[in-house]
Amino acid sequence: MAKLDETAAGVYIIAVTPFTDSGALDLDSTDRMVDFYLERGVTGFTILGMMGEAPKLTLAESRSFVKRVLNRLDGRVPVVVGVSSPGFASMSELSSAVMDAGAAGVMVAPPGTLKTDDQIVAYYGNVVETIGLGTPFVLQDFPQSTNVVMAPSVIAKIVRTLPSCVMLKHEDWPGLSKLSALRDMMSRDELRRISILVGNGGLFLPEEMERGADGAMTGFAYPEMMVGVVNAYRAGQRDRARDIFDAYLPLARYEQQPGPGLAIRKYVLQKRGAIASAALRKPAPKLTAADIDEVERMIARQELRLKEIG
Amino acid sequence: MAKLDETAAGVYIIAVTPFTDSGALDLDSTDRMVDFYLERGVTGFTILGMMGEAPKLTLAESRSFVKRVLNRLDGRVPVVVGVSSPGFASMSELSSAVMDAGAAGVMVAPPGTLKTDDQIVAYYGNVVETIGLGTPFVLQDFPQSTNVVMAPSVIAKIVRTLPSCVMLKHEDWPGLSKLSALRDMMSRDELRRISILVGNGGLFLPEEMERGADGAMTGFAYPEMMVGVVNAYRAGQRDRARDIFDAYLPLARYEQQPGPGLAIRKYVLQKRGAIASAALRKPAPKLTAADIDEVERMIARQELRLKEIG
Amino acid sequence: MAKLDETAAGVYIIAVTPFTDSGALDLDSTDRMVDFYLERGVTGFTILGMMGEAPKLTLAESRSFVKRVLNRLDGRVPVVVGVSSPGFASMSELSSAVMDAGAAGVMVAPPGTLKTDDQIVAYYGNVVETIGLGTPFVLQDFPQSTNVVMAPSVIAKIVRTLPSCVMLKHEDWPGLSKLSALRDMMSRDELRRISILVGNGGLFLPEEMERGADGAMTGFAYPEMMVGVVNAYRAGQRDRARDIFDAYLPLARYEQQPGPGLAIRKYVLQKRGAIASAALRKPAPKLTAADIDEVERMIARQELRLKEIG
Amino acid sequence: MAKLDETAAGVYIIAVTPFTDSGALDLDSTDRMVDFYLERGVTGFTILGMMGEAPKLTLAESRSFVKRVLNRLDGRVPVVVGVSSPGFASMSELSSAVMDAGAAGVMVAPPGTLKTDDQIVAYYGNVVETIGLGTPFVLQDFPQSTNVVMAPSVIAKIVRTLPSCVMLKHEDWPGLSKLSALRDMMSRDELRRISILVGNGGLFLPEEMERGADGAMTGFAYPEMMVGVVNAYRAGQRDRARDIFDAYLPLARYEQQPGPGLAIRKYVLQKRGAIASAALRKPAPKLTAADIDEVERMIARQELRLKEIG
Repeated sequence: MAKLDETAAGVYIIAVTPFTDSGALDLDSTDRMVDFYLERGVTGFTILGMMGEAPKLTLAESRSFVKRVLNRLDGRVPVVVGVSSPGFASMSELSSAVMDAGAAGVMVAPPGTLKTDDQIVAYYGNVVETIGLGTPFVLQDFPQSTNVVMAPSVIAKIVRTLPSCVMLKHEDWPGLSKLSALRDMMSRDELRRISILVGNGGLFLPEEMERGADGAMTGFAYPEMMVGVVNAYRAGQRDRARDIFDAYLPLARYEQQPGPGLAIRKYVLQKRGAIASAALRKPAPKLTAADIDEVERMIARQELRLKEIG
Repeated sequence: MAKLDETAAGVYIIAVTPFTDSGALDLDSTDRMVDFYLERGVTGFTILGMMGEAPKLTLAESRSFVKRVLNRLDGRVPVVVGVSSPGFASMSELSSAVMDAGAAGVMVAPPGTLKTDDQIVAYYGNVVETIGLGTPFVLQDFPQSTNVVMAPSVIAKIVRTLPSCVMLKHEDWPGLSKLSALRDMMSRDELRRISILVGNGGLFLPEEMERGADGAMTGFAYPEMMVGVVNAYRAGQRDRARDIFDAYLPLARYEQQPGPGLAIRKYVLQKRGAIASAALRKPAPKLTAADIDEVERMIARQELRLKEIG
Repeated sequence: MAKLDETAAGVYIIAVTPFTDSGALDLDSTDRMVDFYLERGVTGFTILGMMGEAPKLTLAESRSFVKRVLNRLDGRVPVVVGVSSPGFASMSELSSAVMDAGAAGVMVAPPGTLKTDDQIVAYYGNVVETIGLGTPFVLQDFPQSTNVVMAPSVIAKIVRTLPSCVMLKHEDWPGLSKLSALRDMMSRDELRRISILVGNGGLFLPEEMERGADGAMTGFAYPEMMVGVVNAYRAGQRDRARDIFDAYLPLARYEQQPGPGLAIRKYVLQKRGAIASAALRKPAPKLTAADIDEVERMIARQELRLKEIG
Repeated sequence: MAKLDETAAGVYIIAVTPFTDSGALDLDSTDRMVDFYLERGVTGFTILGMMGEAPKLTLAESRSFVKRVLNRLDGRVPVVVGVSSPGFASMSELSSAVMDAGAAGVMVAPPGTLKTDDQIVAYYGNVVETIGLGTPFVLQDFPQSTNVVMAPSVIAKIVRTLPSCVMLKHEDWPGLSKLSALRDMMSRDELRRISILVGNGGLFLPEEMERGADGAMTGFAYPEMMVGVVNAYRAGQRDRARDIFDAYLPLARYEQQPGPGLAIRKYVLQKRGAIASAALRKPAPKLTAADIDEVERMIARQELRLKEIG
């Protein structure tokens, strides 16, 4: 499998981890989910991310899930695996295992203990020592979850000193000025160009594409939204992109809620046939009748709106 | 002026504080802004809130701004004043001053030093001792900003033990299940009914109205969105409410960004003639050409969409 | 091996995890370290705790370290194993493994995501479901590290609803009033009596013993300090206890520093012959010449002082 | 009054704010307290600091307290006034008022909203614009309270770009390596020398003096400890310094507790005749009989020990 590099673009879907109703890892649904995402036009996968319930898996489960996804994909699109760990020994073990199994690269978020710019840069130096120079990595910038805020100058320092950093997962909220600042440095040749994919459920995707994002890395249950918006921008159709985006926005906003968000995503994916069960592992919120009613009404309105825009 | 009570409903606008381009308090614009909001149908005002740049005012400026707003309104709609302070002596001083000047009630957010349920409840006991039993107060639940998470049971305890708590400003993100839990307690007569107005720029207003909110207390630069949605729900027009909401959602989402959000709001309010200058006091972000271009394009699309829905 | 119960008392040493200079797990030093601690009179061991660099071990390493400690001890004193994990699947796996291998109980700290009293109580309900009713557990209250503050009422609720909670590791800083509040509830028969051992490097051990602690669970490199203070209190020798404590206090204070603390502890343990290398796994601070000079001077003064008090 | 400059040294006492039993500002005790501290050999005062209950005062009270202290001192030693404020308008107002009244300089801590190195440096640029180039300021580095961690490189940047930064209040816990790093830069002429005074109740004063501190800025109720240690180091008497320090350490450690710490300090100051009442303004812990018993026993032991060392 080709390794991830700075030309990566399009939509890397943050895949859910399917469980059966009793909470066991559901490998059959894993195949179905892989097919579902591929059919909607994603150009890559990201697994074992925070929204993939990675911390709820045992090490053995993580490995068998990664293997199953890689087998089903069989090299058709690249796979990035989240390997953030509280310690470097575990990160090394997991990173080696998934790269050997055929992953294209790994993704690492900074631990919440990092408090200064220097500490962040030093941490990623240690990461590269741990995963090896030959393993391309994605720098995950997700301060709402990690509590680590990376200034553009810090990201630039990491990109400059660590050649195996090939992509930024941009998930500050929404951090549009950060994205612009980084792309400005790159266009002025002050900084090596890397791929930038954006998160946050795609909630700022139009603005991010306008400011130079190469696509999205996020998990909204309608990947066709991200695929549609990214493709429209590539085709220079700015209004078309916004039409698509606006049609999905009410539900995307709703799914992006902290708390019930992932339960909503899995509910929709089950409804759409991508996975057999919407079950989450504990601790997890349960959707109420009111939640489900809201989702269903939004889906109905969304379908009408999509027909209107054609 | 009548005091705030648990029947309060509709849209209490979180008013901005107008400054001149050189950063002075702009009292002339204050009059204009009051008129602007009133003309859009708001049923109350909230001033000196976090998004009103209250901490950037001196005590003397705060007082003269409150007086100007109260004078201009001349009792037409009630005014809630934010009096959150690092100490009770300052809170007492400000609260007395604004109630004497004719405010309908005060709003208090919990300080970030509160770490347990008991501490939160005890804090509000001290608040009531400070502002006096005769001053109605709004409990501000805004964990993204305060870092204090209030469980429904904590809010219930405050409502039960403190009769002068007449309103919850619900601004958890989005905390739909919290809102439902509180309204359930009230409908089962386990808890005295108080007013619940919602925040977050109105980003979850339809769902919140469905779950029993009495309206909104927030500051989106198109108050007619909140007014329209609230009125449509009152009239039982659920789809109409969503049509209005969806039309404004792209811009509301954009304005709700942490960081540039308030600058965007003031930009739009200036454009709409509500204030003379979009200036913020330092520290404040400056909008870039890209930001302004995005706002203008969204406003243009929004106008088209509003025509379509009629 | 007998299981941990609410009569546990004395000094449970928080054991370090020995590494070789090249960073490999050092099982030979593990034996030596076990002997060293036993010879100083500890009555129990706690391993895989936060100060034991547990997160820096792979799962396989964790298991082989636990097995080595248990083998060497051969049932002479009980062993508590830290099993805090980001997910319940991993916690279940590790907890089963160590209890099967002969541990006396497990210790669980609350994750930093818990924000309200109810969430904390619910979390420990899930913990007990995960580890099983037959596995005694230690509730670790360490807010400086976890950012979770547990009010006495929350601890009481956990103790009341979860019979397998047999011990509190009290490590609020210093939380003397919390300790008193809990012991008061217990002496008034409002709460089942559990064991309370205290942490913080023993920095408040005299006051904690006076307020009803059963001993210490901490890792200061001179375990004879904790053993001496605890035994003196049991013998009713309050001044003797303070004499011992005061003699060690300058160094205990120095070792308790966040940052270099663990490096200092390992330096002293190596110097005392308990482990072969003072190496820490990355990320870890390196002691400077100034640090070492300070430690050496304090040890020299400490020895003089110990002679004076006899 | 001479302004503060980079030669400041010795002990700047963090003065408490005396209240009467009923909570009123006690200006008579203010005089007595000033005399008490002067008689113990302090070389400066710091007022309206966090431990001085500054946020619990109204603006008018703050001003009258500052005036009273300045009047009583009548220029005998310099006074630094804490002017940290949530907004620059209030900071400007307070800073001007106290400098006009005769303060030697002001102290500013960073607000918890600062998340990156660049933001911290930019903030202090705004501070200097606010207070004026002619007002010397103390950079307060107190991460346990502010949640803002300043790397040595950030402090260096502030010192380099802002000539009116004349002193660092070093209160990281304990941040010995930071202190060494800064003094190393200064001795290599990479950084302008400024005064460094240390905090934390003096709990690491010997180590800090060895690493180049110019003295202490803290508030332990026995200022003669800090004065004694600082003078002994200046006289080259390292063991004498440690003898004094060790004698006071048990109580200094106890007073430095978060929570009851300030109540303990005021209890001791009242006992010593420095203030008429130990009252704190709400919210404040109340000392229990157990707390007071512990303090009294430590004072008794401390007096014996001081006699021993002569």
